[in-house]
Amino acid sequence: MAIVLGPNQYGKAEVRLVHVDRSSPRHRITDLTVTTQLRGDFAATHLTGDNTAVLPTDTQKNTVYAMAREHGVGQPEELALRLGRHFLASGPQVTGARVAVDAHPWARIDVAGKGHDHAFQRGGGERRTTVVTLDGDRCWVVSGLADLVVLKSTGSEFSGFARDRYTTLAETTDRILATAVTARWRYVGTQLDYERLFATIRTTLLETFADLHSLALQQTLYAMGEAVLQTHQDVAEVRLSMPNRHHFLVDLAPFGLDNPGAVFYAADRPYGLIEGTVLRDDAPEAGRAWESVPGFC
Amino acid sequence: MAIVLGPNQYGKAEVRLVHVDRSSPRHRITDLTVTTQLRGDFAATHLTGDNTAVLPTDTQKNTVYAMAREHGVGQPEELALRLGRHFLASGPQVTGARVAVDAHPWARIDVAGKGHDHAFQRGGGERRTTVVTLDGDRCWVVSGLADLVVLKSTGSEFSGFARDRYTTLAETTDRILATAVTARWRYVGTQLDYERLFATIRTTLLETFADLHSLALQQTLYAMGEAVLQTHQDVAEVRLSMPNRHHFLVDLAPFGLDNPGAVFYAADRPYGLIEGTVLRDDAPEAGRAWESVPGFC
Amino acid sequence: MAIVLGPNQYGKAEVRLVHVDRSSPRHRITDLTVTTQLRGDFAATHLTGDNTAVLPTDTQKNTVYAMAREHGVGQPEELALRLGRHFLASGPQVTGARVAVDAHPWARIDVAGKGHDHAFQRGGGERRTTVVTLDGDRCWVVSGLADLVVLKSTGSEFSGFARDRYTTLAETTDRILATAVTARWRYVGTQLDYERLFATIRTTLLETFADLHSLALQQTLYAMGEAVLQTHQDVAEVRLSMPNRHHFLVDLAPFGLDNPGAVFYAADRPYGLIEGTVLRDDAPEAGRAWESVPGFC
Amino acid sequence: MAIVLGPNQYGKAEVRLVHVDRSSPRHRITDLTVTTQLRGDFAATHLTGDNTAVLPTDTQKNTVYAMAREHGVGQPEELALRLGRHFLASGPQVTGARVAVDAHPWARIDVAGKGHDHAFQRGGGERRTTVVTLDGDRCWVVSGLADLVVLKSTGSEFSGFARDRYTTLAETTDRILATAVTARWRYVGTQLDYERLFATIRTTLLETFADLHSLALQQTLYAMGEAVLQTHQDVAEVRLSMPNRHHFLVDLAPFGLDNPGAVFYAADRPYGLIEGTVLRDDAPEAGRAWESVPGFC
Repeated sequence: MAIVLGPNQYGKAEVRLVHVDRSSPRHRITDLTVTTQLRGDFAATHLTGDNTAVLPTDTQKNTVYAMAREHGVGQPEELALRLGRHFLASGPQVTGARVAVDAHPWARIDVAGKGHDHAFQRGGGERRTTVVTLDGDRCWVVSGLADLVVLKSTGSEFSGFARDRYTTLAETTDRILATAVTARWRYVGTQLDYERLFATIRTTLLETFADLHSLALQQTLYAMGEAVLQTHQDVAEVRLSMPNRHHFLVDLAPFGLDNPGAVFYAADRPYGLIEGTVLRDDAPEAGRAWESVPGFC
Repeated sequence: MAIVLGPNQYGKAEVRLVHVDRSSPRHRITDLTVTTQLRGDFAATHLTGDNTAVLPTDTQKNTVYAMAREHGVGQPEELALRLGRHFLASGPQVTGARVAVDAHPWARIDVAGKGHDHAFQRGGGERRTTVVTLDGDRCWVVSGLADLVVLKSTGSEFSGFARDRYTTLAETTDRILATAVTARWRYVGTQLDYERLFATIRTTLLETFADLHSLALQQTLYAMGEAVLQTHQDVAEVRLSMPNRHHFLVDLAPFGLDNPGAVFYAADRPYGLIEGTVLRDDAPEAGRAWESVPGFC
Repeated sequence: MAIVLGPNQYGKAEVRLVHVDRSSPRHRITDLTVTTQLRGDFAATHLTGDNTAVLPTDTQKNTVYAMAREHGVGQPEELALRLGRHFLASGPQVTGARVAVDAHPWARIDVAGKGHDHAFQRGGGERRTTVVTLDGDRCWVVSGLADLVVLKSTGSEFSGFARDRYTTLAETTDRILATAVTARWRYVGTQLDYERLFATIRTTLLETFADLHSLALQQTLYAMGEAVLQTHQDVAEVRLSMPNRHHFLVDLAPFGLDNPGAVFYAADRPYGLIEGTVLRDDAPEAGRAWESVPGFC
Repeated sequence: MAIVLGPNQYGKAEVRLVHVDRSSPRHRITDLTVTTQLRGDFAATHLTGDNTAVLPTDTQKNTVYAMAREHGVGQPEELALRLGRHFLASGPQVTGARVAVDAHPWARIDVAGKGHDHAFQRGGGERRTTVVTLDGDRCWVVSGLADLVVLKSTGSEFSGFARDRYTTLAETTDRILATAVTARWRYVGTQLDYERLFATIRTTLLETFADLHSLALQQTLYAMGEAVLQTHQDVAEVRLSMPNRHHFLVDLAPFGLDNPGAVFYAADRPYGLIEGTVLRDDAPEAGRAWESVPGFC
């Protein structure tokens, strides 16, 4: 028996990069949070503190900023791929990388009904995400969105469920359905029109959520993933994590009042948590696309 | 010398209320966080634990929900006034109240270019706020907004400032200016078109931020408050708290690169914090409008 | 009628300072978050963007670090007073200051039962706080603690309260009482043994919370403040803000189970919020001790 | 080509359970956050909204509370195993489960130097964690701790690292090393003295962090994992995630001051992030122990 080093990675997390494109007086801004992680043969630093092979995380941060100047930022996926490939080329010890980029939306401030050239307001808590994984010659791009908070005030049921001795929940044919969508989709290929794809996938997710008469949050989740796959050949797989943000009808009977779907208490915890994968049965292997080392989930 | 009870208040904080108006198939939802606080003669409970005069905070919560059913919610200011007056009428021991309501924005989900009847998405972290203070016959309404995050990518300078032996900051004639606006304005009177006022004040704040060529965040703050007062006779006073969310130009010279306002590091802490009041010189007295007991600021 | 500038202040918020005292191999560390705010005649920068009188917030940050090196940090109150006086002496335009210091506790890591010389672990979320306010020649020191989370599993009742048509709460003679104490106390004078005072006041607050059989959280709050005043002549006034972190007994009857104070649901929101002031009737005037400009509470 | 349902799970997240053991006047409290997730054949609800096989998440919540009454809570691992086995026995459709339990520490309040019988204070942000995964007859227990924040004021170097054109970091032989340890360890077997094991593993982690003269955070991480494995035969594998919470020496030269390791700026972001696995080369297969479906990492 021996004790050995297993999978490992290291890098710089949450590098806050704001890029201003001044190529015209109508500025464009890109607001990103970038995390880089290198994988490879780093046994020496772990076992003896020999850092010969260790490119400092500080250097990784510098690289993010410098390459943003040298190449611009482009789409999050393009930036992540460029950074990942750069690090893999940086020395023989680096055999893999994971680069995550979150993009934070900004919209132009309207002045007299017209978007301002260089004044912006934040577009909410929603984030556009991407995680690019490189392993030798192979490469995977998993993009997505997070914290897209949506709610239906009707068009949602939950009934006919299993019951046991601990079941007290009443069946309902009309409830509020609310969730904060985290979606990640795995692309096939790496040369894509990421901007357009993000826009249409997001629209597909939103429209499906809105339109489907929901019998279960699981059904909504599956339909959202299915709709993305049906309309986007570049996507092989969609994973969705959707908390059920409960809105409970307040019992107003003690006050002599009815409550026909009017007054709700929005609860914080606990919450239902529905997670699932929708994929093509002939999808290429996911490989290490979804892998986080060392896997704290 | 004796030890005595000073100012005090008690109530229920952060009652999460979602109201669905189903008066037409095109639902309207209102998402509020309500905090009620009662003031008055509550010496007995403090000194001896005699709760005879104490209307439980649980009852206050029930009241929020029940009155939302009985009267609808209306504008946040109207709900706060109705609740405050109700509590003052609840017994001789209650001589004052403070009711705070935060409103969380939702927008309709677009489906095929048209806003859905009953599906919504959250409109970001920004909140509309109101604090209503009642003291006997007197009443003050202070409304506002919080967490309105805005940024200018140019049109902001900072130079000509005082210097001492600890000053190292370089002057600049072109910087990113970013802040999260918290604004509160004190209304004159309590019978107002709060919905329209909120909309036009918010627009005024945004447009002034966007349009003013800024020589200091203080100047921007003052101009924003001044613009609100110039265009809104119902407002007596505006208070603004604006963190300076620093975006530092990254020094790329070590990498042989220039950086003409292109690549920035968005810092978390520390941040500048600029706070100020703009008011009419003939404004009615603020009275207890801004008072929080016991004053944890 | 004219529009005018009212109270205002500006400064640097949340300067994160860690100081290591290496005067012996047994290091001592001090972990502080410092916020400085200057007050005075700053009309020019607000009205015209003339920054001649404005000492940059960046300079204020530098000053925090430089003075920590020049004078050490000492107690939070001493650091705050030193910084405040420095800024008041920095020029005629500064006529007041507000300096807030939060101290974050660390404890030595035990190795083989003995505290390590230079390895530490964080002592939890609790913070020691101070806010020093200077106005010309006058000066006030308000110290305190925040986020001291405590719970009693018995020894707490709530009954005999007022009832109205919205009251449904059952009376109880045995409940869990839990809160996160925020306490602030105003000292008389500025030359005190702040370290010892903090320790004994904190102990007094904790012991009173633990020992008092509570008939209401208000009674507990008052008793805690009263005990501090009875045992600390240097304290003129105590303000306490104590959320009632509800722990609801779970109804297990549907499962054929009793629940004699055994199984509780810890709720997030809403929560009761009890706030009050305890003071000496001959306490010196509070002056501007509690004032935050522009007063966002 | 067809679109199919892939891995999925559902359950109730963050059930807040506080248990009071009143078997003697010296109460013992247990404060837990419990998340249950069921896996199995849930295609019907996803594809058609047929909930026949779906035990509601509300029932799962009820089960947590009811079983805490019926069996007590015991160690987090025991509770998680009991819940997981219960759900697997609940019907043929459930073939697997994932139960996560976080335990929040409380300590007795000292009154006159003696721990109080029923008054407690929270022990900080650190959490004890466990994740139990069941898959048919197989079962894995991964326990750990999170948010254990530690710091060394000396005894840490970082030098001899790789350099490229983007490297500007200076080498150092004396720096502050600070991190928030998240550790998870996989046990062999399920019948263990979890309470004792947690205590000694935690001590081992802390002592190793304190004692090792660190040449790299990777070396510290590996040594911590190795020490746990060397002293705990019941542990097969340790995974550690350790952010490098940078403390930068402030440059005081512009003010004519030296700074021999005295004054530091504690940065928020970005931060280094070091993650690694230490395991026995003859460890039993991890199986699904580390798997989260659908794998949002």
